[in-house]
Amino acid sequence: MTRRAGANADETRVRLTHAASSEFLDRGFEGSSLRRICAAAGVTTGALYCFFESKEDLFNKVVGPTMELIRSVIDAHYAKERSLMAFERSVRIGEEIPSTQANVNLYDDDLDAIRSMVRIMFEHREVVRLVLASRERPLVATFFGELASLIEGQTVCLLDFWDPRLRTTRAFGPSVVRWSSLQQVNMVLYVFDSATEAGEATELAVQLATAIEASFYTLLDRACREIGIEGSPEQAFMEVRAQWPGGTGLPPIYEDLATT
Amino acid sequence: MTRRAGANADETRVRLTHAASSEFLDRGFEGSSLRRICAAAGVTTGALYCFFESKEDLFNKVVGPTMELIRSVIDAHYAKERSLMAFERSVRIGEEIPSTQANVNLYDDDLDAIRSMVRIMFEHREVVRLVLASRERPLVATFFGELASLIEGQTVCLLDFWDPRLRTTRAFGPSVVRWSSLQQVNMVLYVFDSATEAGEATELAVQLATAIEASFYTLLDRACREIGIEGSPEQAFMEVRAQWPGGTGLPPIYEDLATT
Repeated sequence: MTRRAGANADETRVRLTHAASSEFLDRGFEGSSLRRICAAAGVTTGALYCFFESKEDLFNKVVGPTMELIRSVIDAHYAKERSLMAFERSVRIGEEIPSTQANVNLYDDDLDAIRSMVRIMFEHREVVRLVLASRERPLVATFFGELASLIEGQTVCLLDFWDPRLRTTRAFGPSVVRWSSLQQVNMVLYVFDSATEAGEATELAVQLATAIEASFYTLLDRACREIGIEGSPEQAFMEVRAQWPGGTGLPPIYEDLATT
Repeated sequence: MTRRAGANADETRVRLTHAASSEFLDRGFEGSSLRRICAAAGVTTGALYCFFESKEDLFNKVVGPTMELIRSVIDAHYAKERSLMAFERSVRIGEEIPSTQANVNLYDDDLDAIRSMVRIMFEHREVVRLVLASRERPLVATFFGELASLIEGQTVCLLDFWDPRLRTTRAFGPSVVRWSSLQQVNMVLYVFDSATEAGEATELAVQLATAIEASFYTLLDRACREIGIEGSPEQAFMEVRAQWPGGTGLPPIYEDLATT
């Protein structure tokens, strides 16, 4: 009997989050009524409080898992990128390479991460629409802030990896680095807002990511000239990359940029 | 006596808009009280309605002139750019050049326009802060929408000037063109939000404008390859520009980009 009660509880919780999702999307957070949500889910208002502490808590449980999924995709992408940087640094300074790092021989580039993200967003399209319409909710505001900080941290990490002096240049002042991360977050939001289906969104995201990447390399080039680095760190990075165990040289997007 | 009464009326109007500006900035539009504004201006509430129809009208009169000024700077910049394009087209197709166009022999580049805008924004900093804090007001929302459309129109005009086929490419789909204009509007807002004084803001704006410009040229390059244009239209544009009456070749920002 306990297991059966648990199964029912799970069902009730799912019915409530589904009903809440529709209600929030139709009427906004402020305009939504817990009474209506319970009625739609066929649950008493009292029962709702067995599962959720408050309207805010209910909202958070509706959008939380999808936001967590998006964050984990980005996290995994950056973790891989950092692992590649660590590996490349080992190659560059002639250190012995830990075998775990040598095994990272696939280059999952930024575009792959963007494609995954677009796919996830379209798979969870109703919830994502709700998230985009609720940017004033604390959890959502925090999420976008954290996303920007995550990208910012990665940019700083990348600059330090190439040459720590880069961060002292005018091209990579704190405001520029912050802008560049906000721009990437805004790009994803804009893509989702503009495109009606996943294929169109992916195409748009690829165009915009290319544009953003080119703007980053332009700043990088200026910064290198400012501190007197011969050639760009980007080139040095590419040369070493060609030596990676599974390295096939540049991923397409960088090849395009290199010939631009 | 009539003249004197008019002078008083002007003074009263100015006192009211100043008081309203502070009140709106301190308490937001919704939280502002007309009674308090009148008290601060030393005017009866009844007298306020001799000058302004409503709270919204008062708000519009506070922010309107500064927004008009910003719009006129952008308008003038684009009008000059279009005039240069018309002139260059005449040179290119061997038409006789109207003397009014031949007189446009100074290249006031995008950076000059950005510098003017930053200067104006810092000269009217209190009002601009109010505008940025009131993006939900109808006049402000319309203003930013119009600004984006103005930039969008200019981008389309520029693409058509280079080669009308560019707009049929994937790199310049309607969403990309829209994104690029929103990005420019957001850049100006971000600069104002991030910098505490005009010099710092100008420096930041120059970095970001360079980055945005580079992203545009990357897309341009892709689009040219897609429709099979040899060399970029940007280069063709530069070559003709060198023949302009007062032409000094490239303005600095394009020189930087060309060597990137």
